[in-house]
Formats: sequence, structure tokens, C-alpha cells
Amino acid sequence: MDRIEYQVIRSLSKSSLSLWQIINAQDGDIRSTIAVLKRLKERGFIDSDGYNITLTSSGRDFVLSYMKEFVDSKCPRCFGTGLIINERFKKTLEDFEKIFEGRPLESAEFDQGVVPAENSVRRVEFIYKRGDLEGKSILFLGDDDLTSVAMAMTELPGEIVVIEIDERVVNYINEVSRKLGLNLQAYIYNAVNPLPEELKGRFDTFLNDPVETVKGIRVFLSRCVAALKGEGSAGYFGLSHYESSLKKWIQVEKDLLSMNLVITDVLRDFNVYLLTGERILKEGFRVVVESPFKPTAPDYPWYRSTFFRVEVVGCPNPLVTETVEWNRDIYFDEDTYVALP
Amino acid sequence: MDRIEYQVIRSLSKSSLSLWQIINAQDGDIRSTIAVLKRLKERGFIDSDGYNITLTSSGRDFVLSYMKEFVDSKCPRCFGTGLIINERFKKTLEDFEKIFEGRPLESAEFDQGVVPAENSVRRVEFIYKRGDLEGKSILFLGDDDLTSVAMAMTELPGEIVVIEIDERVVNYINEVSRKLGLNLQAYIYNAVNPLPEELKGRFDTFLNDPVETVKGIRVFLSRCVAALKGEGSAGYFGLSHYESSLKKWIQVEKDLLSMNLVITDVLRDFNVYLLTGERILKEGFRVVVESPFKPTAPDYPWYRSTFFRVEVVGCPNPLVTETVEWNRDIYFDEDTYVALP
Repeated sequence: MDRIEYQVIRSLSKSSLSLWQIINAQDGDIRSTIAVLKRLKERGFIDSDGYNITLTSSGRDFVLSYMKEFVDSKCPRCFGTGLIINERFKKTLEDFEKIFEGRPLESAEFDQGVVPAENSVRRVEFIYKRGDLEGKSILFLGDDDLTSVAMAMTELPGEIVVIEIDERVVNYINEVSRKLGLNLQAYIYNAVNPLPEELKGRFDTFLNDPVETVKGIRVFLSRCVAALKGEGSAGYFGLSHYESSLKKWIQVEKDLLSMNLVITDVLRDFNVYLLTGERILKEGFRVVVESPFKPTAPDYPWYRSTFFRVEVVGCPNPLVTETVEWNRDIYFDEDTYVALP
Repeated sequence: MDRIEYQVIRSLSKSSLSLWQIINAQDGDIRSTIAVLKRLKERGFIDSDGYNITLTSSGRDFVLSYMKEFVDSKCPRCFGTGLIINERFKKTLEDFEKIFEGRPLESAEFDQGVVPAENSVRRVEFIYKRGDLEGKSILFLGDDDLTSVAMAMTELPGEIVVIEIDERVVNYINEVSRKLGLNLQAYIYNAVNPLPEELKGRFDTFLNDPVETVKGIRVFLSRCVAALKGEGSAGYFGLSHYESSLKKWIQVEKDLLSMNLVITDVLRDFNVYLLTGERILKEGFRVVVESPFKPTAPDYPWYRSTFFRVEVVGCPNPLVTETVEWNRDIYFDEDTYVALP
């Protein structure tokens, strides 16, 4: 039994679960999870109860022969993140939630996936804890979840610049920034182009939620790295194991080290995204189409990515500096299960 | 102001702190922390109150000009680890604590640093959560903190083998294992030698708390990697930022990727060690000798290491397979501040 199969049936031994909950309970990619579910169904170990996926009686016998009762040690206070929303940041969260509600809706065109407000604040807390926030110059490459606004509302950063492809997001951020008097500016930028000269070597910290292809991540992070000042500058980005196999991860990590970025923190499934509602069932995503059981619409932010912190050792060394061709293979590969090619 | 200096004075803005608490509050190495403390003392920003290190009034003015009040968001329930000790593992912890009390005392000769019982159980929980524990063949290269015993007491692993240089530890583990009927065997082994043939390619999971030099880590992890079955096998080890600069980290990470190990989790300061008591002051450690203020004896397990999980992608590829020379440079380098050359 491989590790994903083990984690899937272990989680089902406690209760029946939705497809989304099963994906949350395992460490692999969605492609492998779907393959495991198909195998388990063929062997008669799992079935649908009309709503959730559940172990059959032969599935239960199989589980009992292989494993003891499943226990979960995830901290219920901080949901396993290690961070609570501190009083000071609670105020930020309350104020930010109002801004967040008025945001432009996300667009599939740019592979956007929006992070709930609380998760944005938790990201900010982690970055603050690391010393990469207060008094720092911070660059966001893409910010459809408006984490830059939450960050600016803490009044801790020196300056924040957002460069973003979606004009609606750029306009909204600038509008909010003007209204609230924040030290935050947004500009339209497409990452296929080289980083503008005036942004090069200017920032202490970058944030980015890149697409999930090796080529795409290389391009996105290269633009970010070119923006950093030098040794000790840091970066934060999300990488999922849902749509990136570990074969992709090892390639991405090789790229990081080649860019003179050392990996200092890897927070598994720290970031959550608002990929919820009926629309997820209707888009034709492979996660829905290929599931051996017709899933119900996800009613909680089930999608996760792992939060990486990297830091420059030596000189920032972007791997891509020229203009790259605008191809769909920047966005999609064989692991893409929650977006459309 | 660099990040370490910022983190040090930020933490002092809340209260006076011991040297050990200051080291805990920053993300850098001890060498840099000591240098920061010297600089701050020379500028008249910090002083000793006879017991702790404290901000002077000019230090307080300096802080106020640079930063807002420090807030800490670390989860108080799980101490920032994301994991609580679950009921099932509480039983393991209680039983294990008795065994742990009777252990042979650690020896400086082998650079041993013992992990408190609760931390051992938390490691076990994390490994269990990842699916690398139940039914698995597990190898410990070195185990002076007896985590293997805590692990075996959960009755979850298939088999556990410990290979360890210290005969007293080997004997104690085997004695406990016999008495309690555990599926756990320990053997004497010195990592300068190639891994014994019968252990090669046999394990799903390894654990190791290597020394803190690039060469030493390369040797230790190579032995571990040679013991793994293949793709999907996993390893866990500790690496501190206290005695390893990020220059060392990036070298270690390059080695990991060259061994076909992808980094899947990096849990900052997850592991704590029992380097406490008056003896720490008397050993001649550089952390004590070079401190600009004479420290008090640490009365809590202040030493930390970051817990890495790695997983094999492709074939395990140990970088060192031959016998290596037994040199002190396996144990010590310029970052060594809590051990003797």
C-alpha cells in the first residue's frame, strides 16, 4: 500500500468524507488521489452514500487488517499552523474583511485562487515573526487575494508595491490605498516581460503565489528575485502538492538553490483558497470529471498550498531575465486538476 | 539594521531576557547573535541587570524610533508546533517518560544532545501524520534521546532498527526492548564506516540528528539514504540555525537534492534539546565564553533545531559510500558554539 492510499483509507476509517476532505487528508497530488479512489472502488472497498465517500464492510475489514484506529494530533486552536490571530492583528483582520468583501471576483483567465481574509492575516503574522515585514520594502507579484492590503493595514511595512496582470485588481488596490492612506501602490505588469528597471534590486521581501508549472514558477520567481536587494532578502510563495507532484517539487527546489535562495521554512498546507461553491462542479475541472464518485460542491475552502520561505545567500541570481513567450504551458501541465487547459 | 539585530531588540522591548531567551527569539546563528549583542552593548543600548539582559533608556529610545510594540502570535496551545499531544500518544508519553529517566547520561564525546520526552512524542506524531510510521520499517542512525523507544511503544511501526556509536545507549535500548517486548533492535555502528550490507535498501523511513557540519551531514545522511528502499521512502533530520549559518544550509540542501531527496517539510525550531544546568556554563562553550554578559545557567531546554522531512524522488543516491576518515572536522566548524573542538 502506498502512502497516499494509506492516508486515504486511514481518514475514511473515522467517518465518511467528501472528495474534498479526502484530498485534504493526504500528502500527494490530486491525480494520484483520484487513481487511489478508482482502485479502492474497483476492489469494492469504498462506495458513495449519495453524499460522501464511505468504506464498505469489506473495506472496513481491509482497514482493520492493516492499521490501528486513526488519531489526529492537529492543534485545534491554530488549525495546525502554529499561529493564532493575535489581538493586534485581529483589528487588522476586522478592518480587512470589509475591504475584502468588495474585491473584484477572481478570474480563471489568470489562474487566480483567492485566499480567505484570515489566511492573509496569518501569512502577515508569519512574515512579521520572521522579521521580513516591519520597516521593509515589500513586493507582491500578483495579489488577487489582497494580502498586500491586509499587510499595509498593519502599518508595519516601509512600502509595498504590487505588480499584477489584472487591471481590476490593480485599480481596486489603488482605490483602497488612496481611501485609507496606505503606503501601497499597484501597477499593471505581465510576468512574461522582464521586471521594470526601477523595481530591480529595491526590495527586502517578495510574495508570490505562482502558477503550478516548473516553467511558470521559474519565470515568476526569477522576476521576484531580480527585485531583491541582496543577501538576507527573503521571499514567500505557495506551492501545492495537489497540483504539483514531488517530481515537480524537486525541480522547483533545484531552481531555488540555483537562484541562490536557501529554503528556510516549508509550512505544509498553510495557505487555503476559496475554491468553493457550485461553480467548481461546472467548470469541467479534472478533479470533478475524473472522480469515480460524483462530488458534492465544496462548502469550505478545501484547496491548500504549502508556504515556502526562502532567503538570499550571496547574490540574487534570477534564472530568467529575458521576455518569455506567452504559452498556455506556463499555466498547465499533466498535474493540473483544478483549472482548465 | 539586519534581521537578527531587529529580532533581538524587538524581543527585548517586551521584557529583559536571558541570553538563552534572546537566542530563541532570533532566526540567525549564535555567532551572529553574540556579535549583535556586542554591538548593542558598545552603543550603550543594552546592559545586564545582574541576571538578564535589558534595554537601557537610550536603547529604548532607539527601539521606539525604529519599531512598534512587539506582538507574538505563537500558538500557546501547541507552542507553535501545530501538534498537540493526542490522548492516544499521551499514554505513550507517560510510559516513555519512565524509560527516559533511566537513560545513560549524554556524552560530549559524540556531540549528543538529548531531546525531552514530550518532543520525542511530538516527532512521532508528525511522522505518523505523514504516513511514515504505521507498518513501516524505520532506521535510526543515532538515538541518544531514545525516540526509537517512544516510537516502538506506540505499537505502530513494523520494525525499528537503531544503529548508534555509544555502546551504553545500544545496551539500554536493547534492554528496554527485551523487557517491554518491543519490535526494536539496536546495534553498534560508527557512521565513518559504510552502511552494513544487510541494512541497505531495507527501510521506508530514517531518522537522524546529524552533527552540524556540511561534511558530517553529508556522511550521516548518505548512510541513511543508502538504507532506504526507493521512491517514496522518507527521512527526518534536525538542522539548527544556531550552529549552522544559512551558507551551510544551502550547501546541505544542495546535497539533499543531489541525493534525490526532495524537501517536503521544514519545521522551524521544532526540536528542543536538554542542554540545561550549570554544566553548560563550565564547559568552555563559545556561546558562554564570548557573550558580552556573563550568562546565567539555562533552566529550560533552550536549544532548538529545525525538523526537515525529505522524500526520495527516483532512486536513493548517497553521496558518500566509502569509509571516511575520523576527523574532528566532521564534528566542528566555525559555527560551533555549544560544543568543544
